[in-house]
Amino acid sequence: MRVAGLISGTSVDGIDVAVVDIDDDIKVVATKTVPYRPEVRASILSVSNTTTHTATVARLNFLLGELFAEALQKTGVPLETIELIGSHGQTIFHEGQAVDFLGRKIASTMQIGEAAVIAQRTGIETIADFRTSDMAAGGNGAPLVPFLDYQLFKHPERARIALNIGGIANVTVIPANARPENVVAFDTGPGSMVMDALAPPFDRDGEGARGGRVDEALLATLLDDSYYVQPPPKSCGREQYGVEFIRKTGIDLRTAMELTVRTIASSIAQYPETADVIVSGGGAHNRYMMERLRVELRPRITTSTEFGIDVDAKEAILFAVLAYQTYHRRAGNIPSATGARKPAILGKVSQA
Amino acid sequence: MRVAGLISGTSVDGIDVAVVDIDDDIKVVATKTVPYRPEVRASILSVSNTTTHTATVARLNFLLGELFAEALQKTGVPLETIELIGSHGQTIFHEGQAVDFLGRKIASTMQIGEAAVIAQRTGIETIADFRTSDMAAGGNGAPLVPFLDYQLFKHPERARIALNIGGIANVTVIPANARPENVVAFDTGPGSMVMDALAPPFDRDGEGARGGRVDEALLATLLDDSYYVQPPPKSCGREQYGVEFIRKTGIDLRTAMELTVRTIASSIAQYPETADVIVSGGGAHNRYMMERLRVELRPRITTSTEFGIDVDAKEAILFAVLAYQTYHRRAGNIPSATGARKPAILGKVSQA
Repeated sequence: MRVAGLISGTSVDGIDVAVVDIDDDIKVVATKTVPYRPEVRASILSVSNTTTHTATVARLNFLLGELFAEALQKTGVPLETIELIGSHGQTIFHEGQAVDFLGRKIASTMQIGEAAVIAQRTGIETIADFRTSDMAAGGNGAPLVPFLDYQLFKHPERARIALNIGGIANVTVIPANARPENVVAFDTGPGSMVMDALAPPFDRDGEGARGGRVDEALLATLLDDSYYVQPPPKSCGREQYGVEFIRKTGIDLRTAMELTVRTIASSIAQYPETADVIVSGGGAHNRYMMERLRVELRPRITTSTEFGIDVDAKEAILFAVLAYQTYHRRAGNIPSATGARKPAILGKVSQA
Repeated sequence: MRVAGLISGTSVDGIDVAVVDIDDDIKVVATKTVPYRPEVRASILSVSNTTTHTATVARLNFLLGELFAEALQKTGVPLETIELIGSHGQTIFHEGQAVDFLGRKIASTMQIGEAAVIAQRTGIETIADFRTSDMAAGGNGAPLVPFLDYQLFKHPERARIALNIGGIANVTVIPANARPENVVAFDTGPGSMVMDALAPPFDRDGEGARGGRVDEALLATLLDDSYYVQPPPKSCGREQYGVEFIRKTGIDLRTAMELTVRTIASSIAQYPETADVIVSGGGAHNRYMMERLRVELRPRITTSTEFGIDVDAKEAILFAVLAYQTYHRRAGNIPSATGARKPAILGKVSQA
């Protein structure tokens, strides 16, 4: 079955597309990233976890639907060969832990990029909104990538950790010969998002950070956050490492990278049996950060490319695979990763 | 098949629930209205077509999901007998006509009341977001009620008009022996909303208006609005007959009722072949207005109760019926009513 996956990540750079053939295994047919025009990116940021007019959220939801459909067409894969689309959309709010709200405990999330528009423009059944069912079942709605990591990287004898460094960094811990319920996954803390904000659009290869010096005093204060010692499952959102974080801490580029490296390293150190760390996400391009990780981490470090998965395409591939699960009425969350009470069939199906 | 329909209307009073058995015909099993607590109503109004924090929209979406699920349980119908739920949710923004947005023409709509929560709490497959596919297909996303009106009221020999008097009044014109594409539907003008604002919460049976005298000069001025002669499809919004309208015109209760009666009457007079006018909506409780309509209208006047449809439950029943259509992969919009280019399968399916 040929399935497309679409996502715009928390870095809000553009739309990542993957087209995969799914059978017993996953074969990547095409991947593509379609950057946003600056005014679209600005508009997304203007509605993300902030005060805005409802009209802007509604209009942007429909506009992103159009752009997601167009991004898929830019892969050049004939639409008539694609049977299903899984679209994550663009997160504009995520609060995995319940808060008090009008007398109830409410966890919530919001993704935009109207699936009905994607389905109508492409003529392909489209599944979207993958985080809500898991949250309704008591989960954090994240991380979802462990499902794919488990499929791709599980090994009878080697314990592995999949490390994705996007805006936020997260790990999937897959013990040797693991069953799904043995998988542990959590956000380690910031990925590239603090760095991206300090050196926009990004310090891709880390050369900007390389010249800097770590503010060890500030770093120690930042590492003294209870989040980092909290047991999994746990997830963090943009708001935690957004502009307010930068303003309050006065953090610099080099220290921001170090915060990412150290929080990743200390998270992985909790699993001393780990044989391989398999990196994906935009952070995999950051040569200097990869150098630092090689110094800080004991296990062998490689990237998902070794397994045929483009480091930039893993999340898009994930949503193709999750859509495939939902299409077959199979659960797509891993409760031990999200904290959900039970496996849930994820997403909402829009007919073309 | 037993299906539940859920909606919270633009008046934001509470959640209307209907449980129906659908076969060749539609049999109403239970109806219920569950009012909102004042702070929930205030929160909904605080995010509707106004400036708000994304967090409030996201949290309210999940909270309303809980409340919708609880409202269904308050009907007392055993959940295990219900196979499917159709939930309209609560509209917080609707713009059926496209506007310029970041260089594109974008029409949009936004309903909240998380379907994944409804599905998880009830254990029942839930379909929601009924307006988006129609809009993606070029329609206004409204009105959707003509689909139900057509199913309920079509007649081989009698031309009929379904008249719904809510805040706004609208008609569905169903010629004798009509096919779906022969159906015309539009808003006639104000329903009860001007009266409600003048005699809050409402002049339910019209006794407040009965003693008054029509200000004929003012009425003549008001009827001289180009909207009333504009050809369908057309729709009017809350803003057209809001507080500003009352302030500018100085209209009184009796004249407000007469504006509703005359605009309904002149709309219906354009279809002289009409045999029956079938009234539903809160306005059907207004005895004096019904008397006035009987004087002004030539066709026989009845209410949806004659067809087994509680005048207050029609919209909730609609979303049960639309869910049933989607479940069977059949279209639910009527393009001649919404302006869509084609029939569309409406809604998004969440598995329990």
